[in-house]
Amino acid sequence: MTAATATTAPGGPVGAHASPHARWRPVAHDAVRLSPGGLLGRWQRRNTEATVPHCIEQLETAGNLDNLRRLVGESDAAYRGLHFADSDIYKVLEATGWDAGRPGGRYPREFVDDVAGLLARAQDADGYLNSWFQGVKTEDRFSDLRWGHELYCLGHLVQAAVALHRTTGRDDLLAIADRFLTLVSSVVESGETAGICGHPEIETALVELYRHTGERRHLELAARMIDARGHGRLGHDHFSSSYFQDHQPVRAADEVTGHAVRQLYLLTGVADVYLETGEPELLHAMERQWASMVDGKTHVTGGLGSRHRDESFGDRYELPAERAYAETCAAIASVMWNWRLLLATGHGRYADELERALYNAVAVGVSADGAGFTYSNPLQLRTGHDGSEEDSPSGRLPWFGCACCPPNLARLMASVHDYVVTTSDTELQLHLYAAGEYLLDGGVLHVSTDYPWDGVVTIAPDEGLRTRGLRLRVPGWCSSFSLVVDGAPVLEPLVEDGYVAVGPGPREVTLTLDLPVRTLRPHPRVDALRGCVAYTRGPVVYCLEQADLPGDLVLEDVRVTPGAAAPVAVAGDDVLPVVLAGRGRHRPPPPGPLYSAASSVADSGDDVAEIEFRLVPYFAWGNRGAGAMRVWIPADEDTNDRRNR
Amino acid sequence: MTAATATTAPGGPVGAHASPHARWRPVAHDAVRLSPGGLLGRWQRRNTEATVPHCIEQLETAGNLDNLRRLVGESDAAYRGLHFADSDIYKVLEATGWDAGRPGGRYPREFVDDVAGLLARAQDADGYLNSWFQGVKTEDRFSDLRWGHELYCLGHLVQAAVALHRTTGRDDLLAIADRFLTLVSSVVESGETAGICGHPEIETALVELYRHTGERRHLELAARMIDARGHGRLGHDHFSSSYFQDHQPVRAADEVTGHAVRQLYLLTGVADVYLETGEPELLHAMERQWASMVDGKTHVTGGLGSRHRDESFGDRYELPAERAYAETCAAIASVMWNWRLLLATGHGRYADELERALYNAVAVGVSADGAGFTYSNPLQLRTGHDGSEEDSPSGRLPWFGCACCPPNLARLMASVHDYVVTTSDTELQLHLYAAGEYLLDGGVLHVSTDYPWDGVVTIAPDEGLRTRGLRLRVPGWCSSFSLVVDGAPVLEPLVEDGYVAVGPGPREVTLTLDLPVRTLRPHPRVDALRGCVAYTRGPVVYCLEQADLPGDLVLEDVRVTPGAAAPVAVAGDDVLPVVLAGRGRHRPPPPGPLYSAASSVADSGDDVAEIEFRLVPYFAWGNRGAGAMRVWIPADEDTNDRRNR
Repeated sequence: MTAATATTAPGGPVGAHASPHARWRPVAHDAVRLSPGGLLGRWQRRNTEATVPHCIEQLETAGNLDNLRRLVGESDAAYRGLHFADSDIYKVLEATGWDAGRPGGRYPREFVDDVAGLLARAQDADGYLNSWFQGVKTEDRFSDLRWGHELYCLGHLVQAAVALHRTTGRDDLLAIADRFLTLVSSVVESGETAGICGHPEIETALVELYRHTGERRHLELAARMIDARGHGRLGHDHFSSSYFQDHQPVRAADEVTGHAVRQLYLLTGVADVYLETGEPELLHAMERQWASMVDGKTHVTGGLGSRHRDESFGDRYELPAERAYAETCAAIASVMWNWRLLLATGHGRYADELERALYNAVAVGVSADGAGFTYSNPLQLRTGHDGSEEDSPSGRLPWFGCACCPPNLARLMASVHDYVVTTSDTELQLHLYAAGEYLLDGGVLHVSTDYPWDGVVTIAPDEGLRTRGLRLRVPGWCSSFSLVVDGAPVLEPLVEDGYVAVGPGPREVTLTLDLPVRTLRPHPRVDALRGCVAYTRGPVVYCLEQADLPGDLVLEDVRVTPGAAAPVAVAGDDVLPVVLAGRGRHRPPPPGPLYSAASSVADSGDDVAEIEFRLVPYFAWGNRGAGAMRVWIPADEDTNDRRNR
Repeated sequence: MTAATATTAPGGPVGAHASPHARWRPVAHDAVRLSPGGLLGRWQRRNTEATVPHCIEQLETAGNLDNLRRLVGESDAAYRGLHFADSDIYKVLEATGWDAGRPGGRYPREFVDDVAGLLARAQDADGYLNSWFQGVKTEDRFSDLRWGHELYCLGHLVQAAVALHRTTGRDDLLAIADRFLTLVSSVVESGETAGICGHPEIETALVELYRHTGERRHLELAARMIDARGHGRLGHDHFSSSYFQDHQPVRAADEVTGHAVRQLYLLTGVADVYLETGEPELLHAMERQWASMVDGKTHVTGGLGSRHRDESFGDRYELPAERAYAETCAAIASVMWNWRLLLATGHGRYADELERALYNAVAVGVSADGAGFTYSNPLQLRTGHDGSEEDSPSGRLPWFGCACCPPNLARLMASVHDYVVTTSDTELQLHLYAAGEYLLDGGVLHVSTDYPWDGVVTIAPDEGLRTRGLRLRVPGWCSSFSLVVDGAPVLEPLVEDGYVAVGPGPREVTLTLDLPVRTLRPHPRVDALRGCVAYTRGPVVYCLEQADLPGDLVLEDVRVTPGAAAPVAVAGDDVLPVVLAGRGRHRPPPPGPLYSAASSVADSGDDVAEIEFRLVPYFAWGNRGAGAMRVWIPADEDTNDRRNR
C-alpha cells in the first residue's frame, strides 16, 4: 500500500462505517495523509520512527516476549512484569497494524511475523492464551476475573488482530484471537465466573470484531457484559465495587467513578454498543456521565483521574495540580470515548474534549524524542521534588513496571489521522484541523493550516467532492471566527452544535479561528487551584517551567499578572513555533512559620522583582531536564478573583 | 495498685529516668491522676471503658487471635488479616499494661492471661513467634525483612511485655519476647539478612527493654540497626529506598522522607539511642529533620503525611486538605518522638508539636464514643464524597483491614498522663496542662484548670515539693500570658526555650495563658490552601461541619470573614464546652464551566447570603453523622491575602 492509492479499506480503530446509529462515518484508514510539517504529522512521524521501534525493543528488554517464549521452551527466563504484560505486546502489535496501513507508515513485518508465530505456538489446544496463567498461575485460569485481566488481554489481542488484518490482510492473529474468544465465550456463558472482566476493554474490542467480521455473537457478548456489570458480581477487597464500576448498572450511572481508565474503557465499549443498537438509555447514561466528568472531574489539560492510590477520579471538584494523576491511558481513553460519542451524535462538545485531551493530556505523555514517557501527568512539579518513585518521577521514563501507557500512545499516534475528518452522505465534517491531503470518495480534500499555532484553515475540495457540503468545527473555546467561501466572507455564520455548515459547491473555504491567549480560572469549588490562573491558546494549555526562569528564582514564588500573556512566534523553531510571553512578579515568602496568624504577616517588600518569562505548551514540559513546572500559576492582583470568594 | 498509693515504679512508655542524656525525667506511671472532668481525663476514661474493650473484642472478630490459635490446633479458621496482624494483639496488650498501672485504670487479667498463654504455646522451640510465617509462609522466615514486618511485630511484643511487667509484675511475656529476641539477634548478626526491618519499631522497643532490664545488648542492637540503615540494604521494588528511609544514613538526613510512620518510628528509636549515648550527630540530624517537618511537611492539625499511595510525607509544602493522609499512627509517632526530644533537650518547641498532634491529629482518630476510628485524617471532606473506600471513608469505622491505628490510640491514651509533667533534681516541669493530682517524690502537685478550654492554670505544690522550682510551658502559639505567684503578679516574666521558671517556695502559682481565637494563614508555597484561613484557639484546631449549616447551604460555598470568629461557651456541654462562632457569606457559584476565561465570570450576585455558623474542634468532627467538613475555609475579603501573592 502506498501513499498514492486510496483504498476503500474499512477504516482505522473504529470501523463504524456501517454502524446504524453513527450519525457521521469515519473515513478509510489510508485516506488522510498528514503533512509532515504539521503538528499531528510530526507526532505521527515521530511515532513511526522512534516510539514504535522503542516499544518493540522494550518488549524484548522488559521480558514480555520471553514470557511467551518460556511457555514453548524457547527461553529459560523467569516470568517478568505484571500479570497482564501480554497486553503490552498486543498494543504494540496494534500500533504496527495502524502504522502499516497509514500513508507514510512502516510495517515491521519481521517483528509481527515473529510474535504472531510465537503466539500461535504458545496458544493451548483449547484456545487459551495468557503467559501469566499458562506459565505461572497455571491452576488459576478464569478463577479471578476481578484482578486476572485475562479478558482485558484478550481484548487487546482482538484489537491487534483486527488492525493487522485491516491493514496488511494477515489473518493469523485473527485466528488466534478467535480460538481464545470461543473458549472465553463458553466460560462466560457457563455462569461459573462473574462473566465480566475487572478491567473493561474487551467490550469495545468485541464490537470492533463484530464490525470487522459481521459476526453478531461478538456484539451480543459485549452487550451482555455491559448488562452484567454493576451488580457487584466481581466482589471487592481493598478497593470497593465502584473502583471496578461494578457498584451500579451502567444505565443507572450518573457520575464517572472509580479507576479512571477502567471507567473510560467501559464507556468506550458502551458507546460502541450504542452505535450498533441505538438504545436510548445507554446514550442518556453516557451523556450524564460525560457531563459529570467535564463539569467536575476533568483537569484543564483534559487529563482524568485525581488519585494515585487507586488511580480514580476522586470527588467532584477534587482536582489537585501537584498530585493530579491524569494517567496517559485515561486521556487516550477519553479520545476513544469522545470519538464514538461524536460519531453517534455529531455534537462538537465531544470533539472539543477529544482535542483538549489529545493536545495536552495525551501529547504530554511522550518526550520530544519519542522515547520517554509519562504514566501520571501532574499539572505541577515542585522545586526539590523527590522524583525517585516511578509513580511520581521528575521526568519521563523509558518504560514502566506497568507499561500500559507507552504502547497505548503508540497505537493512538499511529491512527491519529483517523480522528480528523468524517463523512455522511451529503457532507464532510472536519474536526481536528490538520494540514494534509484527505483522499475521500470522489477526490482529495486539500487542507492547509498551521493549526494549532495559527487559526487559519484553508480547505479546497477536488471537484468530485464539491457535491457534498462541509461542516467545520468551531471549538468551544473559540469565541470569534470568520468564514470565507470562495473569497466571499460569510456574514454571521451560524454555529450549530459546535459546527458551521457550508453548502456544496465551493472550491475554497477559509475558516479563521481567532486564537487569543485565554486566561482561565477554576470553578470556585476547585480548592486546589484557588487564586490561580492557567493560560491556553486554542486547544493548547501552557505551563511555566523552571528552565524558563533565571536559576535563582524559585518557581513557587512566581506570581503572574493575569491577562498579561501574549503569543510570541519563535523564529526558526518548527517544533514549538509559538510560546507565550508572560509577566508577573517574583515574591520570595517572608520569613515565618508554615502557618501564621494573619496579623503577623508582613509583605516581602524589597525582595519583590518584576519579571518576564515564557510559557511553553504543557505537552512540551520536561524536555530540557528536570525542574519545577506548573500549569496553574498564582495570580498577582489587587483584588481577589471574584469567583473565588 | 490503687489511686491512693504512689509508687516508684519505673514509669510509663519511656522509662528514661536514668538515661544519662535526658535533661528532664519522666515521672512514675502511677504518679499523675487526671481529674475525670478534664479533657485528657475524659479521653483516658473513655479509653478504659470503651476503646480497650472494643479492641479486645475486635482481636477476636477480626481473627488476630485465631491466627495464633490455629498454630496450636485450637482453631481451624484460615489466617485472616495482614501479615503483621500480630502487632495489633501486642499493641492491645501494651494498652492493657498501661491501663492496668494507671490510677483509675483496669487490668483485664483474664484476657492477658489467655493471650499470654496462647503466645507461649504458639512460640516455636527456637523462639520464633509470628503467626503469618509460622502458619502461612512457613518457608519464608527472615527471608524478606523489607516487607515481612517480623522485627516490627517483635518490637511491639517487647513493648507490651515491658508495659505489663512494669505495671503488673507479670514476666511471662517478657520471657517470650526475650526468647524470640535471642533468635533474632543471632539472625541479624549472621549477616544473612539486611539486618534491619522494613518498618522501624524494634529500635525504640529495644532501647526501652535496655532501660527496663539494664541489658546493654539491647541498646547495642538498636544502635547497630540505626547505623545499618540508609545503605540500600533493604532493596526496593515499586517503592523506592526512601520509602523505607534506607536511601541515606540517619546521620546524613536533612528531611523527613518516605512513609511517614516508618520515618517517625525510626526517629523515635534514634531519639531513644541518643538519650542513652548522647551522640551529637544523632541529635543534629534529628534537629534538621524536625525542622524540615515542622517548617514544610506538617498539616495545621499536627498531622503528618500527604500521600495516600505510599503513605508518605510528599514534597515540601505539599499539604493538601482534602487528600491529607495524616495517618493517626503518624500523629501518635509524632507524640512519641517529640516527647523524647523534649526529655533530651528541654525545649518547648517539642512540647508544642506534641500538644498540637495530641489535641488534633491524634484525638480526631477516635469517635466520641471511643469505638470508631479513623486511619487517615483529611482536613476536608466534600459534599457528596464517595466514602465507600476504607482508605477514604465518610466517617470513622469500627476497625480496618490494616488495623494499626485503633490499638495504637489505645496504648497512647492509656498512658497519656505520662506526658504531662517531668522532673529534674531541682525542678518540676509542666508541659500539658491537665487538671489532677500529681503524686511526685515529696508530695502532691495539685493542678486545677479547664485547659484547653480555659487558659487559667493553678498549681499548688504540697510542702514537700516546694524545695523545687517550677518550669511552666508557655506554648509557642501563646503571645500573651500572666503569672501570679502566691498572689503577686510577676512583672515581665521571662520565657526561656518555651518555659517560664518559678523559683522554689510558693504555695500557689497561677499561670493564665490568653486564648484568643487565632486566624491562621498558610505559607504562600502551600498551594492547596491558598486563599483560606483556619481557626485555632489554644492548641485546638477548629473546623466547619455540614451539621452546623442549614441543610440547603453547600459547605464548599461558604466564605468566611477572617478574624470574625469568637469563642462561645456552650452551656451544659461538658464534652465540648467551647465552640467558635464564625461569620461569612454563602456564595453559590455562578453557572459556568469548570474552567472559564477571567473576563466572562460574573459574581453570583443576589444569591449571596450573610451567614453565621459554629466551628467545632477538629477532633470532634464526624460525631453527628456523615457530612462535609473543612478546616481551611476560603476567606471572603476585599483584598487578597498579601502573603499569597
